[in-house]
Amino acid sequence: MIDVKDLFTKNYIDKEVEIEGWVRNHRKQKEFGFIDFNDGTYFKSVQVVYEDNLEDFLEIQKIKVGSSIKVKGKLIKSPKEEQNFEISATKITLLGDCDEDYPIQPKRHTREFLREQAYLRPRTNLFNAAFRVRSITAMAIHTYFQDRGYVYVNTPLLTANDGEGAGEMFLTTTMDLANIKKDKDGNIDFKNDFFGKKVGLTVTGQLEAEAYAMAYKRVYTFGPTFRAENSNTKTHASEFWMIEPEIAFCDLEQLMDIEEDMLKYIVKYVLENAKEEMEFLDKFVEKGLIKKLEKLINSKFIRLTHEQVITLLKEANTEFEFKPEYGQDIAKEHEKYLTEYYDAPVFITNWPKDIKAFYMKLNDDNKTVAAVDLEVPSAGELMGGSQREEDYNKLINRMKELNMQTQDLEWYINLRKYGTCIHSGFGMGFERLLIYLTGIDNIRDVIPFPRTPNNCDF
Amino acid sequence: MIDVKDLFTKNYIDKEVEIEGWVRNHRKQKEFGFIDFNDGTYFKSVQVVYEDNLEDFLEIQKIKVGSSIKVKGKLIKSPKEEQNFEISATKITLLGDCDEDYPIQPKRHTREFLREQAYLRPRTNLFNAAFRVRSITAMAIHTYFQDRGYVYVNTPLLTANDGEGAGEMFLTTTMDLANIKKDKDGNIDFKNDFFGKKVGLTVTGQLEAEAYAMAYKRVYTFGPTFRAENSNTKTHASEFWMIEPEIAFCDLEQLMDIEEDMLKYIVKYVLENAKEEMEFLDKFVEKGLIKKLEKLINSKFIRLTHEQVITLLKEANTEFEFKPEYGQDIAKEHEKYLTEYYDAPVFITNWPKDIKAFYMKLNDDNKTVAAVDLEVPSAGELMGGSQREEDYNKLINRMKELNMQTQDLEWYINLRKYGTCIHSGFGMGFERLLIYLTGIDNIRDVIPFPRTPNNCDF
Repeated sequence: MIDVKDLFTKNYIDKEVEIEGWVRNHRKQKEFGFIDFNDGTYFKSVQVVYEDNLEDFLEIQKIKVGSSIKVKGKLIKSPKEEQNFEISATKITLLGDCDEDYPIQPKRHTREFLREQAYLRPRTNLFNAAFRVRSITAMAIHTYFQDRGYVYVNTPLLTANDGEGAGEMFLTTTMDLANIKKDKDGNIDFKNDFFGKKVGLTVTGQLEAEAYAMAYKRVYTFGPTFRAENSNTKTHASEFWMIEPEIAFCDLEQLMDIEEDMLKYIVKYVLENAKEEMEFLDKFVEKGLIKKLEKLINSKFIRLTHEQVITLLKEANTEFEFKPEYGQDIAKEHEKYLTEYYDAPVFITNWPKDIKAFYMKLNDDNKTVAAVDLEVPSAGELMGGSQREEDYNKLINRMKELNMQTQDLEWYINLRKYGTCIHSGFGMGFERLLIYLTGIDNIRDVIPFPRTPNNCDF
Repeated sequence: MIDVKDLFTKNYIDKEVEIEGWVRNHRKQKEFGFIDFNDGTYFKSVQVVYEDNLEDFLEIQKIKVGSSIKVKGKLIKSPKEEQNFEISATKITLLGDCDEDYPIQPKRHTREFLREQAYLRPRTNLFNAAFRVRSITAMAIHTYFQDRGYVYVNTPLLTANDGEGAGEMFLTTTMDLANIKKDKDGNIDFKNDFFGKKVGLTVTGQLEAEAYAMAYKRVYTFGPTFRAENSNTKTHASEFWMIEPEIAFCDLEQLMDIEEDMLKYIVKYVLENAKEEMEFLDKFVEKGLIKKLEKLINSKFIRLTHEQVITLLKEANTEFEFKPEYGQDIAKEHEKYLTEYYDAPVFITNWPKDIKAFYMKLNDDNKTVAAVDLEVPSAGELMGGSQREEDYNKLINRMKELNMQTQDLEWYINLRKYGTCIHSGFGMGFERLLIYLTGIDNIRDVIPFPRTPNNCDF
């Protein structure tokens, strides 16, 4: 049995074919009929034509949209369009009927409606494209790193680390909620819980990845992370996938080289391997999408310090809602101004230490850290990374400054005691990348079964 | 800057090199010294030789095992072994010192000890091999499926599905455990929880994968799953990775073709891409490992029904602890007998329905289901799969027989109403595969940071 993809990519013209798949559309005439036939292996459907010489012609005409069928026939050049072909059917067999109440009819559905039908929506053009691009992008990421000798590390999702300020965590437990035991001080006694302590779902795999970078030089994670934040925006989900590369003997400048190289590689890979999907998305979702991506591939990313950025913003002839200030964070409007000003992706480095995480390398000025955010035109922040503090004493001091418990992260700190070295890493939200690549602007539409506050269906 | 891997795979003989990495071993003589130098990019270390003509010779001699260093020198053919080479150092710089209490000294450590040092153990030969093989195996799996048009689906980990009997689940919550609210019937009121209902960590992505197979024909998952079972065995972990392919228009026989083809592909890929690691594991962990794997590649997998297997076991001239019975499950000793009898992997099909899951296709005999387990010599069950029940009424009847709530899985059942088709899938535990591939017999030693009852460190 062959795939629809074979019809489009191999030469089957004038050959007999036998193929199974689903009816996307069915237009009936008195003496013949047309079926848009798709088996999911290729973005495009193939047209099946049948005529009233088929013995069960009347039965065939009753076949409903959504049904699964088997088609026998000959692949012939389409009489109308030179470059096209269709299947001239000699036999059509109904395999699985489709109920009248099938929600996915050949008409325009809103994305909100389709979100409620998340288990059926990959059968529509939009979501079929979105989730094949997701799959191809994942492969681009694995290929990029594996070809360059990075070791893929599966960092744990269940963790007793408390998130280091990266976000609110979900608690995981097997205790009986109806009968929670407390210790003599009135605190919840996690000794009875599955792991004998308080455990939740991780917000990052970075710390564990650092340990592995100290063994393999180059590693990456690619797995789920969680945030229990009650935010209902287009870019937030409670469960999403992250890519976190970590590289030993790599400083901030080299890290930016890697980020730029990786992003260009992924974009190129997707444009080459998801041609039909990207053309569809360019046409129906974000006009100019392909041009935007090709431009990125050919651009040289700008590198500025946070201080340079603030100076630039202050000198800008623009009324910002939030006034840019040295030592302060940068708002979305500033990011936008910046990437439009340069008409290219911009790395912003050397951020004020007070608005960044404890593990980032303190610069000699004692005020900034060797952090870097990548701002991309129309996408905003796509990656965030830093050189890590490799100095044992500086790391401990910084943690104490922030009133962090050092004993919980003793193993992490110890990495600075046992052959420490300059090392750097970054994190990239997989779905944020997909929003950029597909032009689909809501994170709920690039995750197969999205989880957000009060939403956990399927 | 180059990698140690470059030294072994490109031609650097007689060239000047500059390289950063760690000291694995350091042997000192009066007038010279040898450093086993490794940067993690290659399994093997390269030897660095230095002599007392270096100005800081005495300082260099103090460099401790575990330290990170930078070496400048010339790569020369080793005077002793024709096929080998070493770096004749002109300069050695200490980058990161290593404390005296460094646990990974160049001597034999027990695996139990190293498990407690999980963040350092990838620096040892055994675990360096194990986790690089893990990474390479992951890539083998992605490559196999992507090359064959499978779409990679990230099924959700947070789920309100209750596990369908596959195992105990972890509960995830953001409620205040010290102040759990109950409804008027005295039940815990999950309306106040993050998702507005009871949500836990998934035990399988199969059901969601089925929905996607109905859109793409061929899909696979590859992600974490969880079991909150209080079992402390060598093969159980609370968090592990699973691969779950699902294929539309595919019956049980075709499914077995795919399983056999995939396994052989993965084994071949790993033998080719992790040569040094596999040779090490063959030598020090499981003698004959490579031969075992090569044999698998060249074997033809046997296919037997459960009934045939029971007959064979009953006729066997062996005293089993558990007596084999028609209609009953098969014990580990039976699996072992079977694979040794055939000296090849064995597919066991058509299992008694009462010991298998609700979604498996009921055979015409009304007693067995179209399930298949793959038993592999020395590894036991490596994959479990089935043709899925594609008939709407039969599926509902089976769920009712098992007292399952159909309303929670309405979407899943609906797949049988909207263009249902014959489809099949299987699940493979990633770590169980790794145990087979590496010869390492404890699941805790093939997961970077393993989670088991009362163990959630790092």
